[in-house]
Amino acid sequence: MSQQTVNGVPSRGKVLTLDNMNPNVKRVEYAVRGPIVQRAVQIEKELKEGVKKPFSEVIKANIGDAHAMGQKPITFLRQVLALCSYPELLEDNKFPEDAKKRAKRILQACGGHSIGAYSASQGIECVRQDVARYIEKRDGGISSNPDNIYLSTGASDAIVTMLKLLVCGEGRDRTGVMISIPQYPLYSAALADLGAVQVSYYLDEDKCWSLDVAELRRSLNAARQHCNPRVLCIINPGNPTGTSVVASVCEMKQFCHFLSPCVYQDNVYAEGCKFHSFKKVLFEMGPEYSSTVEMASFHSTSKCYMGECGFRGGYMEIINMDPEVKAQLTKLVSVRLCPPVPGQALLDLVVNPPQPDEPSYTTFMKERTVVLADLAEKARLTEQIFNKVPGITCNPVQGAMYTFPRITLSQKAIDKAKEEGQVPDMFYCMKLLEEEGICLVPGSGFGQREGTFHFRMTILPPTEKLKVVLHKISEFHLRFTQEFS
Amino acid sequence: MSQQTVNGVPSRGKVLTLDNMNPNVKRVEYAVRGPIVQRAVQIEKELKEGVKKPFSEVIKANIGDAHAMGQKPITFLRQVLALCSYPELLEDNKFPEDAKKRAKRILQACGGHSIGAYSASQGIECVRQDVARYIEKRDGGISSNPDNIYLSTGASDAIVTMLKLLVCGEGRDRTGVMISIPQYPLYSAALADLGAVQVSYYLDEDKCWSLDVAELRRSLNAARQHCNPRVLCIINPGNPTGTSVVASVCEMKQFCHFLSPCVYQDNVYAEGCKFHSFKKVLFEMGPEYSSTVEMASFHSTSKCYMGECGFRGGYMEIINMDPEVKAQLTKLVSVRLCPPVPGQALLDLVVNPPQPDEPSYTTFMKERTVVLADLAEKARLTEQIFNKVPGITCNPVQGAMYTFPRITLSQKAIDKAKEEGQVPDMFYCMKLLEEEGICLVPGSGFGQREGTFHFRMTILPPTEKLKVVLHKISEFHLRFTQEFS
Repeated sequence: MSQQTVNGVPSRGKVLTLDNMNPNVKRVEYAVRGPIVQRAVQIEKELKEGVKKPFSEVIKANIGDAHAMGQKPITFLRQVLALCSYPELLEDNKFPEDAKKRAKRILQACGGHSIGAYSASQGIECVRQDVARYIEKRDGGISSNPDNIYLSTGASDAIVTMLKLLVCGEGRDRTGVMISIPQYPLYSAALADLGAVQVSYYLDEDKCWSLDVAELRRSLNAARQHCNPRVLCIINPGNPTGTSVVASVCEMKQFCHFLSPCVYQDNVYAEGCKFHSFKKVLFEMGPEYSSTVEMASFHSTSKCYMGECGFRGGYMEIINMDPEVKAQLTKLVSVRLCPPVPGQALLDLVVNPPQPDEPSYTTFMKERTVVLADLAEKARLTEQIFNKVPGITCNPVQGAMYTFPRITLSQKAIDKAKEEGQVPDMFYCMKLLEEEGICLVPGSGFGQREGTFHFRMTILPPTEKLKVVLHKISEFHLRFTQEFS
Repeated sequence: MSQQTVNGVPSRGKVLTLDNMNPNVKRVEYAVRGPIVQRAVQIEKELKEGVKKPFSEVIKANIGDAHAMGQKPITFLRQVLALCSYPELLEDNKFPEDAKKRAKRILQACGGHSIGAYSASQGIECVRQDVARYIEKRDGGISSNPDNIYLSTGASDAIVTMLKLLVCGEGRDRTGVMISIPQYPLYSAALADLGAVQVSYYLDEDKCWSLDVAELRRSLNAARQHCNPRVLCIINPGNPTGTSVVASVCEMKQFCHFLSPCVYQDNVYAEGCKFHSFKKVLFEMGPEYSSTVEMASFHSTSKCYMGECGFRGGYMEIINMDPEVKAQLTKLVSVRLCPPVPGQALLDLVVNPPQPDEPSYTTFMKERTVVLADLAEKARLTEQIFNKVPGITCNPVQGAMYTFPRITLSQKAIDKAKEEGQVPDMFYCMKLLEEEGICLVPGSGFGQREGTFHFRMTILPPTEKLKVVLHKISEFHLRFTQEFS
């Protein structure tokens, strides 16, 4: 590229090239928005330009983007946000009193009573108090300190910040971070960026993607040969696998710092399943654990019933962090000034929703219940339809909003993929995209056991559309299997 | 800390301690929200608790936080944001048609027509188009490509991203980044975090903080002894110095990648001064420059007449970037999914404000003019009042929203500061905070020539309050000078 002519002038070599840029950035991969999504965007443009395709629209089931899939925003949340944005509306009697009360309280806590002011870097104090109370209620009264709450720009931001704090050492002393396979690729991307060592442990697909302590131990011992594994990430409930993880992993407390994202805590559908926070499990094991295990857990406004991804709201709670390290964390987050204040306001509503005696309660609960019931129904449908297809096996979607079915690919298909220079499940997903206009993420982007193949799909499309998607994928799979048999 | 007893249980050593955390993070310093601001927050709490002080409120002049200082949001911006948040208001005839038109256009471009959907990682396409048109207009028709626009979470986010791309090498090959002293401490903080080498060049205080090419060359040659200086940051107009920089630095184009934040582009007050973008200057020098110089420039919604810091809106434009590197940049920003969508919407309004034939135009222009005229008046007042005080010298505030006056400190004061374990200007500012409740940032947090002392102050408080602040500082300075004479 460096030898091109630009505007008729021969170009000198570039200052910044692939050869001399940050090598860690080059190692970053992020499948959820990777090549297949870029191709999907291209196809959308081709459709707009009138290019004929065997389908009329691209369905992006690659990312958990609820509103993009047609889920309606919760009225109460948006009313308060409008009031905070344009406080003149506080005089408007179309808005319910509880929405006004929330908006006034948030504005009162903002500099100059405006969400256009910077907040404290750790987040608005009254929002952090509300978060702490919410966690206490969730965990049956186990105390939570607002000083240990850090608001963030979505959960990703806080996860990357915590990983950054934890990474040090060179060579065999380099920090290793244990992540489950399949994983959410934010982890592998952040670890590449930070130059940390990814230590994989496999979830047990045959046991509904459960976490196996023997496998954790194997992975840990293997890692010790080449790095210093001292961080353990446990996604609860899991993404992409949708499994509730409540594991007896605390034998690792002596050397591990735990990261526990639980952004799907309200997305637990399976009968008999209930969300248990890692913190609660820990505290119920007694003070030997509750006062020593170092942990950070994360939540966001992007998932659950609200699905407000665009606002980039989130928080993390830290537990048992060394006070000197905590001071470093506070300093580090101050460099980015503050998380987006509209996202902080939204988070406040999520942790402090309308109460039974308030005017918005009935509508709020109705809207919330519809979303969650729909998701539970879609989780059921997905499992049912996929498991009818020979060559697709699909665990129950117990939580979260994704399914990660296993697909059987013939040797012929694998060889053909190799010929095309693609990994087999990318070849499969690309073909599906070109033929059916459905955008999934190949399992290889999340990690999978050698020789197994999967794809990840969100269950977010509206029920009728989801049925179409499921049937199209099923038919495609049969066709694909036949073509390469 | 590690040997404490927690809840009666003896604590094991912590997994994560100051000794084994990321050493780069420990090196990060960020004066704008540093120890003096923490003390200010503490004093505010003490005041609330009824502790008697010689003042009744803390005035935080440490950060450019317009709304917190009482500046009112621009009506049009907030109307559109309310409409985007709660589209039911589109039916409300209290909102002007042009506000509705903008809101509809933004919503149309969002997934599911909701600002709660993720946007493309690079930002909403129609917003990027508007940004490109805005840049073209600003630069007298020089073309701008929406594909080269990346929306961001404030300007800080994009600056850190670009620095991250540029950092590589070890030892003497490590990337050096040239930044002006005084600097905005985001740069030093980000460079510490990335483990890059900070290369300082001094602005000329005697020439109104102008940039001196001989000094640039000196700094560059010195840096070459110990690192690979290949990035040059030029803040235009300057923060914290308020000087418009239009420099003939292009002799450096052979080896430097330019970063040019211009978040204060509408904040140019001095008579005869006008904002000239680095890009425009470059393009007017002919294709030898315009087609080769690699540059990234940055803007945000936080400053200028809007002062919407809390929304964390911003963009960067990249010029002449190697396409392979650009692909890496696009991949890198995708890991954080997308910048906050309300901030993207706000940015769209900033670059596409009401036009003369639209109903909101008159009010919008009136509000905008009042803010900018106020700032110009405050810039004048600040210079005038400070320069009357023996021992304070203050350059004209030509742009931005800060002043960086030089203060003369006696040897006795310097010795006393040493005794207290503080750098002299921190000692001065802390004393000012304790005695007058005014929070400034010591010049040492921005960098200054050895043996000189300064403080940074925003000129944002309302005029009447600013007068009080200026007089209080003046009196304090005289008292301080006498005490240590």
